[in-house]
Amino acid sequence: VTFHRQVQALVLAPFLQDHPSVGTMFPADAVARARRLTAAFNGAIGAYTDSRGAAGIRQEVADFIHQRDGHAANPDNIFLTSGASAGVSYVLNAMIRDADDAVLVPIPQYPLYSATLQLLGGTLLPYYLKEDAEWGMDLDEIRRSILEARARGLKVRALVFINPGNPTGQCLSADNLQDLVKLAHDEGLVLLADEVYQTNIYQDEKPFLSAKKIMCDLGEPYANSVELVSFHTVSKGVLGECGLRGGYMELVNFHPETVAQLYKTASINLCPNTVGQVAVSLMVNPPKPEDESFELYAKETGDQLASLRRRAHVMTESFNSLEGVTCNFTEGAMYSFPQLHLPPKAIEAAKEAGKTPDTFYCLQLLEETGIVTVPGSGFGQVEGTFHLRTTILPREEKIQEFVKKFKVFHEGFMAQYGK
Amino acid sequence: VTFHRQVQALVLAPFLQDHPSVGTMFPADAVARARRLTAAFNGAIGAYTDSRGAAGIRQEVADFIHQRDGHAANPDNIFLTSGASAGVSYVLNAMIRDADDAVLVPIPQYPLYSATLQLLGGTLLPYYLKEDAEWGMDLDEIRRSILEARARGLKVRALVFINPGNPTGQCLSADNLQDLVKLAHDEGLVLLADEVYQTNIYQDEKPFLSAKKIMCDLGEPYANSVELVSFHTVSKGVLGECGLRGGYMELVNFHPETVAQLYKTASINLCPNTVGQVAVSLMVNPPKPEDESFELYAKETGDQLASLRRRAHVMTESFNSLEGVTCNFTEGAMYSFPQLHLPPKAIEAAKEAGKTPDTFYCLQLLEETGIVTVPGSGFGQVEGTFHLRTTILPREEKIQEFVKKFKVFHEGFMAQYGK
Repeated sequence: VTFHRQVQALVLAPFLQDHPSVGTMFPADAVARARRLTAAFNGAIGAYTDSRGAAGIRQEVADFIHQRDGHAANPDNIFLTSGASAGVSYVLNAMIRDADDAVLVPIPQYPLYSATLQLLGGTLLPYYLKEDAEWGMDLDEIRRSILEARARGLKVRALVFINPGNPTGQCLSADNLQDLVKLAHDEGLVLLADEVYQTNIYQDEKPFLSAKKIMCDLGEPYANSVELVSFHTVSKGVLGECGLRGGYMELVNFHPETVAQLYKTASINLCPNTVGQVAVSLMVNPPKPEDESFELYAKETGDQLASLRRRAHVMTESFNSLEGVTCNFTEGAMYSFPQLHLPPKAIEAAKEAGKTPDTFYCLQLLEETGIVTVPGSGFGQVEGTFHLRTTILPREEKIQEFVKKFKVFHEGFMAQYGK
Repeated sequence: VTFHRQVQALVLAPFLQDHPSVGTMFPADAVARARRLTAAFNGAIGAYTDSRGAAGIRQEVADFIHQRDGHAANPDNIFLTSGASAGVSYVLNAMIRDADDAVLVPIPQYPLYSATLQLLGGTLLPYYLKEDAEWGMDLDEIRRSILEARARGLKVRALVFINPGNPTGQCLSADNLQDLVKLAHDEGLVLLADEVYQTNIYQDEKPFLSAKKIMCDLGEPYANSVELVSFHTVSKGVLGECGLRGGYMELVNFHPETVAQLYKTASINLCPNTVGQVAVSLMVNPPKPEDESFELYAKETGDQLASLRRRAHVMTESFNSLEGVTCNFTEGAMYSFPQLHLPPKAIEAAKEAGKTPDTFYCLQLLEETGIVTVPGSGFGQVEGTFHLRTTILPREEKIQEFVKKFKVFHEGFMAQYGK
């Protein structure tokens, strides 16, 4: 996004703001914004900030959340982080004492959670998403997992959910989220809401609903007691500034002493990088309709989102047009996660090759077409089912070629191994 | 540093590189460098890189190390990190299994090490630096600590040293470093070399010597067997770009499988932020004498270093001119760490106030003068001795005022509590 990068350049090289030629290379609103941001860093973008990030930017995040949800947010409970992953790591680190501490994680999941839990020596409790209900959450399945864990003597501390889903692409419904908040309340679970894809929405029926909004709308006792952390990032959305490592987390209903402990943990790493902080500021506070740069900003982001929406449809439809493939629609996020109904001979051949069937399929796809996908076993899947994850990110002009190549490969594969 | 910030701005907003007016705001060598760096990120500074950092920049770091030490470095063993702290965290994380794993840490130390070890559940083994030998390392003291630890059943895995020292400001001698390398070899310790202040040197007698150079110069069996990690950063030196979170670590003599495991750990956080990577590139590969920007670069960095050197002298001399204060010269780094010989009455008054004597002193100093210092107990010190840490960073025009205020306070304090 042009405006964002202009502001970042001007903040990094603040002497440009006063250069006599600045007007020939930068619009006035970018210069004005850069001046405000430079002031938010006390003039020194190269210096450490508060370990939670610059106060002015945390206030901007609080305003953004307030506007999004209709419920106020407290900047003291907002931590800017180097990408969402850093926040997840701080919070899980605070929660896990030993292998008796367990965290519910959706399957399929983005493997950040399994890796971090493993690193911290905690226990991952899987709960399976319902593929036949558009990858929604099944509260009975979650209860089953909790009971089973408690029977094993584990302490179930938290539940992770990803909305919109990675790799599953679902947008959770208000009903689903309400039930989840109630369950968290009843079972005393901390909710870890991975909401990094909140602006990547490709249909109008199920808009993104934040867990914070759902919880606050429910009122007491939920609104004032369920402990919730929401993670967001500049890496996704239409910015896709993943290299800059910017993000934030909002802590809701945590004891001030817990927030203080997390602050202490964050301070070991001194501070989130300042350019990532600037990126967060620009994400939550983009140009307004009355601003000079608004038109270009709206066009760049609108075009990008419209294109992603078209691609989400093309991908889903293409997968569903293939024999032996079924695919839920990518309601949000950036991925298709089709199920491959592989013939027995293919499963046998994979076994002989010493690979899982989905890996066997994905490797052959790679060799024959050059298309890179990730086997479902990298994310977890119901035993005996096979999936792959692909992004919807190839450029539109390339996506038809992708679809065609994929179709030729798949039909050949199915023909080779019988149906 | 103007050149560095110019390049960073051009890399973040690459469309500026082709703007018709670019020549009015940026020197040609900054534009050329930005083009090369943009290419090193495959044109996408906003995208994820390899979890170890961009290959081209790791090669630049390897070239820098080669030139600095006269010994080659392998870019596959160099990881770019979000500041040095992230590297320390990866390495300690890989080493600590439980409280039986112990790491030798100098006392006084920069508290990153104690905090990270505590977080990981490992054990910190203190070894005291010799204040009366310019804060050098005492190998007998280290051996004492190892023996004591082994008698307690601990596994001594590694030794941290900080050169130049924080908070102690010493530059380790070649003899001291050679002895250390030999000890690491004999005892099977991994050496963790915190060398973040390597360009902050304020005298000519004891230049910075890297542990890698010392080890390689010693030849076999040391050069090819002692496991060494060296940490460096853009946060210190004359750049002081601590907010950008850029750094690197070089792993020497590690088994490729260990390097691969560290790579895996780093990949959980996806990648170090790209602007920090650019800052590392510029640190290790600054303008050359034949470049248009060299003159300004040399002036900016030379002036800064010369000023720091003057300040290091002024601070040490001022502290030593006070009654009841002794202070080793700040040979390198950014700190003075004077010892306060506090009168018994002051120690008593501190006890009554429920504070350690150094904290008691520092708080009174803060209240009466506004000068912020950190009590020695924050870094560790020999029992019964009291210190404070102050930076040599106040601007030169302010440092005389600082010295004057400090003197007035100290004399008042000593008068109040008797000598």
